[in-house]
Amino acid sequence: MNTSPLSEFELTCPVPISDYPAVLMAHGGGGRLTHQLIERMFVPTFKNTLLEARHDGATLPFEQGKLAFTTDSYVVKPLFFPGGNIGKLAVTGTVNDLAMCGARPAFLSAAFIIEEGLPMATLWQVVQSMQQTAEQAGVQIVTGDTKVVDRGKGDQLFINTAGVGVITYEQAISPQNVQPGDALLLSGDLGRHGMAIMAAREGLSFESVIESDCAPLTDLVFSLLDAGIEVHCLRDLTRGGLASTLVEIAQASGWHIHVDEKAIPVREDVRGACEILGLDPMYVANEGRFAAFVAGKDAERALAILRAQEAGEGAVIIGQVQSTSDRMVTMRSMIGANRIVDMISGEQLPRIC
Amino acid sequence: MNTSPLSEFELTCPVPISDYPAVLMAHGGGGRLTHQLIERMFVPTFKNTLLEARHDGATLPFEQGKLAFTTDSYVVKPLFFPGGNIGKLAVTGTVNDLAMCGARPAFLSAAFIIEEGLPMATLWQVVQSMQQTAEQAGVQIVTGDTKVVDRGKGDQLFINTAGVGVITYEQAISPQNVQPGDALLLSGDLGRHGMAIMAAREGLSFESVIESDCAPLTDLVFSLLDAGIEVHCLRDLTRGGLASTLVEIAQASGWHIHVDEKAIPVREDVRGACEILGLDPMYVANEGRFAAFVAGKDAERALAILRAQEAGEGAVIIGQVQSTSDRMVTMRSMIGANRIVDMISGEQLPRIC
Repeated sequence: MNTSPLSEFELTCPVPISDYPAVLMAHGGGGRLTHQLIERMFVPTFKNTLLEARHDGATLPFEQGKLAFTTDSYVVKPLFFPGGNIGKLAVTGTVNDLAMCGARPAFLSAAFIIEEGLPMATLWQVVQSMQQTAEQAGVQIVTGDTKVVDRGKGDQLFINTAGVGVITYEQAISPQNVQPGDALLLSGDLGRHGMAIMAAREGLSFESVIESDCAPLTDLVFSLLDAGIEVHCLRDLTRGGLASTLVEIAQASGWHIHVDEKAIPVREDVRGACEILGLDPMYVANEGRFAAFVAGKDAERALAILRAQEAGEGAVIIGQVQSTSDRMVTMRSMIGANRIVDMISGEQLPRIC
Repeated sequence: MNTSPLSEFELTCPVPISDYPAVLMAHGGGGRLTHQLIERMFVPTFKNTLLEARHDGATLPFEQGKLAFTTDSYVVKPLFFPGGNIGKLAVTGTVNDLAMCGARPAFLSAAFIIEEGLPMATLWQVVQSMQQTAEQAGVQIVTGDTKVVDRGKGDQLFINTAGVGVITYEQAISPQNVQPGDALLLSGDLGRHGMAIMAAREGLSFESVIESDCAPLTDLVFSLLDAGIEVHCLRDLTRGGLASTLVEIAQASGWHIHVDEKAIPVREDVRGACEILGLDPMYVANEGRFAAFVAGKDAERALAILRAQEAGEGAVIIGQVQSTSDRMVTMRSMIGANRIVDMISGEQLPRIC
């Protein structure tokens, strides 16, 4: 039993922390404690009529057309970092994957794998973040699951979210749709999420605190689509960063992508941190940045639309798709030489999301 | 490097086991090895055009109406047990949750959280099971995710599946729809999944091998719906077993549920194993059994429909909903006394699914 006085934050926890300072195996057992966690913490916080039906699955009302469906598990370490936490990330990441399909995010599931002993207050803080981010992104968390694994068989908390979104646009948005002549836009500066995690994990302090760029991208994406921009492909730049994304798209589309390194914005503090750690910002994960392939004719207009919004004020055109069908990515470097951009086989930063 | 000769099974593994006998952190890093795992193992095995689009999410074609959406994470230990494995379970469990919503399962996501060092051949075996079960249940695995966590921060393999199904029935199927006069049907004998896991985990050997009942329930459920049976609520009897399910439904519906213990089938070997371990089959998890609340007038016809199928040949009527609005569950025991059935606060068997 925790005998230290509870903080104001802990007092708001709907599962009494004095009785349950930490998550027990029984919270995942399907019995009374599981029920208590669902009824007191999850259902009231993620409040919506679909979840309140308390069925094994949610029933989604749907008019007609096409849906997008995606999933991601989040295993980020540490759970909290400057600019976000695993809960914010779990909603943002899945919402962004839907937006990248040109789908308006509508419904999320939330599945928790909790290591026995996780402080109840930590779970509560994460759950609240999820709801705040869901509201910001305009989605409802409508179904879920809770599992608890024994101490030493997990790492505090893993979260899976799956998402369903509604595709209302006629145009196909996919790597296969990328065409020669397309302009490649980047929505803002690179590398902040990765460096924020790295600094938090290693206890590094740089001159300034680097905050994760973690944010829903729905508004930016739909500002392009609503304006009738001919968008061919969208990708958020998570694991593997910009470089891996471009290599994947070049391979899937069949065309050659060429980018200009000088055009790619990287904040000075991020560049410095990357240099210290021997990392290349091109491969560092972001959680609030995307690449857009748009028809060349619409490039400048798309750029102006993104820049008119706070979340997109750092947007730039960084390259174009060329009519060589070699499935390669090349980059004109800072010093003017062209080099081939490849995937890295390992990962620069494990457990970044 | 593994220097022992590879088995025939290992030779079929599409990621060369001689190069990668075990999963590395880099398989989750979003770079070349992640790509290799997806391209060689996941996409060809879960073969379908939606997955082959290689986008972050899948686009679901959909006519009109309502969808069901559900998620579950699977943390079962051990990964393999008589009658199934975590992969079969991960497809079955989510398919069954959709069926319990009266939805025809259509699309699944599959998200893997892999502990570094998992034998590649184990992953391959699980992935194949998932596809076999998906085919049996008539669903496609259309999107996915792979994360790898460091050794000692997971437990070999956790899988999350989310599912989308199509609701084509007008009648609402939910706990709130349960009414006095409803008959309570059980689709077969109780307790086999829990006892199969327990025996595998503890190395217990009983007179006979108890195999998990793990199986998709779609066909049984739709045989009732297609026959026009007035089905009010359906629930598969997983974590917490029959007892916890009935308590949840009594609470959600507001009515009193009464069951007859004598009517509940439990195999002799399962009953014996439960007695040895001090467990009550009413609370033991099943993965191929469901409870159906149907209008009293349809009870006998529903029973006949279930019994006409191999998977439902053990179906029985075990109770009814009474017109007392006390939200309680009572059971007439073997010796004729009535007792209150409650949820257990802990769990009898951790990590059963």
